[in-house]
Amino acid sequence: MKIGILTSGGDCPGLNAVIRGAVIKGDSIYGHEFLGIKDGFKGLVLDKISKLPRKQVRGLAKQGGTILGTSRIGPFEHGGSERVKEVMAKHGMDAVIAIGGEGTLTVARMLHEDGIPIVGVPKTIDNDLSATDYTFGFDTAVSIATESIDRLRTTAESHHRCMVVEVMGRHVGWIALHAGLASGAHAVLIPEVPVTIEQIAGWVKATVTRGRAPVVCVAEGFTLKGDQDVVAKGGVDGMGRPRLGGIGEQLTPLIEELTGIETRCTTLGHLQRGGVPTAYDRVLATRFGIAAVDAVTKKKWGTMVALRGTDIQSVHLSDATHEVKSVPYARWEEAAILFG
Amino acid sequence: MKIGILTSGGDCPGLNAVIRGAVIKGDSIYGHEFLGIKDGFKGLVLDKISKLPRKQVRGLAKQGGTILGTSRIGPFEHGGSERVKEVMAKHGMDAVIAIGGEGTLTVARMLHEDGIPIVGVPKTIDNDLSATDYTFGFDTAVSIATESIDRLRTTAESHHRCMVVEVMGRHVGWIALHAGLASGAHAVLIPEVPVTIEQIAGWVKATVTRGRAPVVCVAEGFTLKGDQDVVAKGGVDGMGRPRLGGIGEQLTPLIEELTGIETRCTTLGHLQRGGVPTAYDRVLATRFGIAAVDAVTKKKWGTMVALRGTDIQSVHLSDATHEVKSVPYARWEEAAILFG
Amino acid sequence: MKIGILTSGGDCPGLNAVIRGAVIKGDSIYGHEFLGIKDGFKGLVLDKISKLPRKQVRGLAKQGGTILGTSRIGPFEHGGSERVKEVMAKHGMDAVIAIGGEGTLTVARMLHEDGIPIVGVPKTIDNDLSATDYTFGFDTAVSIATESIDRLRTTAESHHRCMVVEVMGRHVGWIALHAGLASGAHAVLIPEVPVTIEQIAGWVKATVTRGRAPVVCVAEGFTLKGDQDVVAKGGVDGMGRPRLGGIGEQLTPLIEELTGIETRCTTLGHLQRGGVPTAYDRVLATRFGIAAVDAVTKKKWGTMVALRGTDIQSVHLSDATHEVKSVPYARWEEAAILFG
Amino acid sequence: MKIGILTSGGDCPGLNAVIRGAVIKGDSIYGHEFLGIKDGFKGLVLDKISKLPRKQVRGLAKQGGTILGTSRIGPFEHGGSERVKEVMAKHGMDAVIAIGGEGTLTVARMLHEDGIPIVGVPKTIDNDLSATDYTFGFDTAVSIATESIDRLRTTAESHHRCMVVEVMGRHVGWIALHAGLASGAHAVLIPEVPVTIEQIAGWVKATVTRGRAPVVCVAEGFTLKGDQDVVAKGGVDGMGRPRLGGIGEQLTPLIEELTGIETRCTTLGHLQRGGVPTAYDRVLATRFGIAAVDAVTKKKWGTMVALRGTDIQSVHLSDATHEVKSVPYARWEEAAILFG
Repeated sequence: MKIGILTSGGDCPGLNAVIRGAVIKGDSIYGHEFLGIKDGFKGLVLDKISKLPRKQVRGLAKQGGTILGTSRIGPFEHGGSERVKEVMAKHGMDAVIAIGGEGTLTVARMLHEDGIPIVGVPKTIDNDLSATDYTFGFDTAVSIATESIDRLRTTAESHHRCMVVEVMGRHVGWIALHAGLASGAHAVLIPEVPVTIEQIAGWVKATVTRGRAPVVCVAEGFTLKGDQDVVAKGGVDGMGRPRLGGIGEQLTPLIEELTGIETRCTTLGHLQRGGVPTAYDRVLATRFGIAAVDAVTKKKWGTMVALRGTDIQSVHLSDATHEVKSVPYARWEEAAILFG
Repeated sequence: MKIGILTSGGDCPGLNAVIRGAVIKGDSIYGHEFLGIKDGFKGLVLDKISKLPRKQVRGLAKQGGTILGTSRIGPFEHGGSERVKEVMAKHGMDAVIAIGGEGTLTVARMLHEDGIPIVGVPKTIDNDLSATDYTFGFDTAVSIATESIDRLRTTAESHHRCMVVEVMGRHVGWIALHAGLASGAHAVLIPEVPVTIEQIAGWVKATVTRGRAPVVCVAEGFTLKGDQDVVAKGGVDGMGRPRLGGIGEQLTPLIEELTGIETRCTTLGHLQRGGVPTAYDRVLATRFGIAAVDAVTKKKWGTMVALRGTDIQSVHLSDATHEVKSVPYARWEEAAILFG
Repeated sequence: MKIGILTSGGDCPGLNAVIRGAVIKGDSIYGHEFLGIKDGFKGLVLDKISKLPRKQVRGLAKQGGTILGTSRIGPFEHGGSERVKEVMAKHGMDAVIAIGGEGTLTVARMLHEDGIPIVGVPKTIDNDLSATDYTFGFDTAVSIATESIDRLRTTAESHHRCMVVEVMGRHVGWIALHAGLASGAHAVLIPEVPVTIEQIAGWVKATVTRGRAPVVCVAEGFTLKGDQDVVAKGGVDGMGRPRLGGIGEQLTPLIEELTGIETRCTTLGHLQRGGVPTAYDRVLATRFGIAAVDAVTKKKWGTMVALRGTDIQSVHLSDATHEVKSVPYARWEEAAILFG
Repeated sequence: MKIGILTSGGDCPGLNAVIRGAVIKGDSIYGHEFLGIKDGFKGLVLDKISKLPRKQVRGLAKQGGTILGTSRIGPFEHGGSERVKEVMAKHGMDAVIAIGGEGTLTVARMLHEDGIPIVGVPKTIDNDLSATDYTFGFDTAVSIATESIDRLRTTAESHHRCMVVEVMGRHVGWIALHAGLASGAHAVLIPEVPVTIEQIAGWVKATVTRGRAPVVCVAEGFTLKGDQDVVAKGGVDGMGRPRLGGIGEQLTPLIEELTGIETRCTTLGHLQRGGVPTAYDRVLATRFGIAAVDAVTKKKWGTMVALRGTDIQSVHLSDATHEVKSVPYARWEEAAILFG
């Protein structure tokens, strides 16, 4: 078979390991050929495609980013399924492996419904896909966030300050939850559990009372609960203009005001998504790549690979994309034991 | 309740995070008191016990080793269950949380059968306990081994050498399998799958043919298959004396001889079990500590906490300790795709 | 002798290693006693002082921050030299070791001129003290910045973006210069060398032309040269309001506009000053601590320790504090070879 | 000019950064062309030479090892200076940049004396070249050794063991000295300062008495002082046969026997020389590469680049290679303060 591979959406540590796993198994066991599609679906409709021989995936397990490039552009903006079929036919491409997040997998499902032979590989640093226990990238992001909080904590302790750290997580709080647990944060604020600014201030003051420097770990998608004035106040600066910056920067002056404790903010941002993947993510991504080429060989079109316990399974794309995996309240409560 | 905690057997990154999780939840939610038992069961029978207040577990999530100390001495060598009951009564100790590997959990089961209120927390860097998907320490060991192989590989490539790396794993090959997959090793040798020296030499030569410097990742418990002369040859030096050193050092001259490729060995040893735990291990260990104190509160005597998928569950100690979790052949075969 | 130690100003990796070096040598070789002064000069005038026995400095070489706490409050706001002498007399304190940056060392010089027996240890993450080749903290900051840029680069390459990274350096560009050189940045912008936005855009476009994703490493104190309209434009948002955020955030939209290349900014901030010091900084800080207690023993009042080549020397505080050590133009030009 | 570059001797983190620095400056400022010579002098005499265009050195600053390959084979075994001149003439090669340690630099000096236009770049992980304050690779080796000892220490503390760590340093103890200082070792054993086994046992016991787990950091070239029977005893096993293994493994049973404290050994070996260089080494190596191409352009034949304080200078190869830079006794004594 001749198989095209593409990576789509935001980059993520482990993408290259997926590509490598798929190409090596496909080449050495099945005798497949591979085509690298540049910059996601964009390359598929604009025909930016070239051979992807085994020697090009050498040493990729540990390399961050994606050698194929990525973009957020979908195929439906440039000809859709008909154009995809046309380009595939031109290259003799028998199947596509699409590696990406919820948007990518939704597009893959739609292409599958239009008869295109496609298999998905889930990618989400945020860990928000319900069909898989974890995906690659999440562990690396949590590791970087944890290590960063470890560093920031020493400064907080030396200066008797409160440190607010904003981590990724627009819709779900998994990174904040895990990094907060791992680093011993004194408050973990996630989109799933809005709390009031008074509650946050309470945790911060209780921490200070116990002689420690508070660390507040907040997901970028967190919103304050309740008192809309306080929310509004968080949203404007001293001159009544809307604040720029993320939720971390907005919370910082509010915490300082309510607690009287000097407070600083660090927004980790892109640091969490780049660079060398952790061993955990390399193993998972490699296994995903191997399983994806198995699925292609078995013509399991319209499925994606997924982790369940310690096994890699195939699940239907339609099951994989209809629901966001939120942090259950009980998991947040488990972390909250350690607050304050 | 008044709860004693002990750590027993080899040390492991995450032990302190378990202790911290248990003490903080026990203190803040249930109002339990805690006693720290020094050096495992030895401290329980020799009465080396002192208070373990919450402030003593501050900042422990990231600290390697165990603040309680550990030893491999069991209680049956110093008075057994009667002595344990006596010491517990003296301190008003209502329950014991025992953190350790297969040996420790077997002892815990025996103490439970003698009527001692005990709950286990599984600890095994090697990942050889069948009752839990993973335990803390394994991820850290795999990370360190992977990072080490990443380093060794650059030297191998520069000098056109073969590099043999011996990792932990006396009875099972999980660390070798994961570190080998993560680092792209060209041979992964594990106790579960004996292979001949000729097979190893074949992988090494095939790697060289493809223009790369071979990396052989071998678990300490691996043994050569078949030809007993070659095995014996591995076991003696040029003067016919038994070789000292582990399997990695024994394989090295054999590989060099059969392939003609300069070969060097590095034995990672204790490096893999010490130091700061990965974020993954900190989260898992903290959750285990929290679940253990929940189990004690619910008087689930004779159980241990375990990871299944993403959930923490309680399983009976008798189920937990009767079988070693080996690497299935299919998992090794999955890795073998990438060899040679 | 009875020696007080204080840390003052912003925290810095290595402060604890200085304290440890001084206390261990003072205790074991000279038989000195030590007093820990809390939160810098504030603790000296407010009498927040307690014993600092050898066992309290155990294991401190690798610990970030400062166990003594720090503040930016000087003694002259609370009674000045007379009050310092009073508190010293009360505790029988024979000398003070003051660890801090330019401000702290200036205060130390003034106290020395008032007859207070004091020795300084230079601390500056920014590397802006002319009297010493390097100080501890700088190497750690450069390491963290370099590692961060390594990570950000993979995302830049995958998305074909320009990445702007703001590092520390309010008055001098040493961190930006070293981190930029180490990570292969395509523009290094420092306070000492203002350049125009057109020049920056030129480097960015030249990098893209060569098929690479540009990385711009900018020190927080950098300012644009020339065209005041462009400067102003950088300083206001689309609605004409002054932009918040640092120079990195201000440059980002300007670069994007001039080059047409998607551009993102990461501000490393406090990450650069916390956490475990590098081995280099631990060695230097330990040597500084040892040399400081030697200087006290020899009553070299009014001096500070300094690194010259591979030697630790004593220099007069008056020589140490009158000039900022800027990046020479030739050093910047050396880095600029690698731009574009 | 057309410049050949070679790397010779053991590999070392930073070699690629030197190559990159030289090629980029040579290409962009001077318009030089570059030729890559494979596997050191071997490639120069066996004519394994190919173009080294700028795009091949992209991203090399952080890459360990050497893309040119290396060997320990000298030119005099294959035709010597005449053959070198012949091969250079064939390629139109105007000069050679030779990157290597003492052996390599001695060869370079001899070739220079025979009229070959050559410039050296010093490489020594061990830091044993007297003509330069430091070279690249040393900082990386010290960092890895320090981080390893940090890890091993937690195991030592948990098990109340003594931990012996053998680091590189056949003739000089710089790595042991710096890693020992940085990690707070309780004994630092170096070739320059032989001590008796009783002295070592004394430090170990004193450490235990103070309630800590001893760490002994030993350079591979250390030898025991005095009592030849003890030395011999170290050199034979229980059956009177010479022990295999390095000095660390030899000392371990002796320490255990004399102190009664359980003792374990880890030999770091090749781990110390591979992988990603530290930021310090990347900066130094890049500056060396830039300076080497400056020296070639200025026809400073027979010189090598060197670090003096913070400056890069040119020194004569004849000055550079006649003396090993040992650890002065005073530096060891400084570290010894922290022992026991």
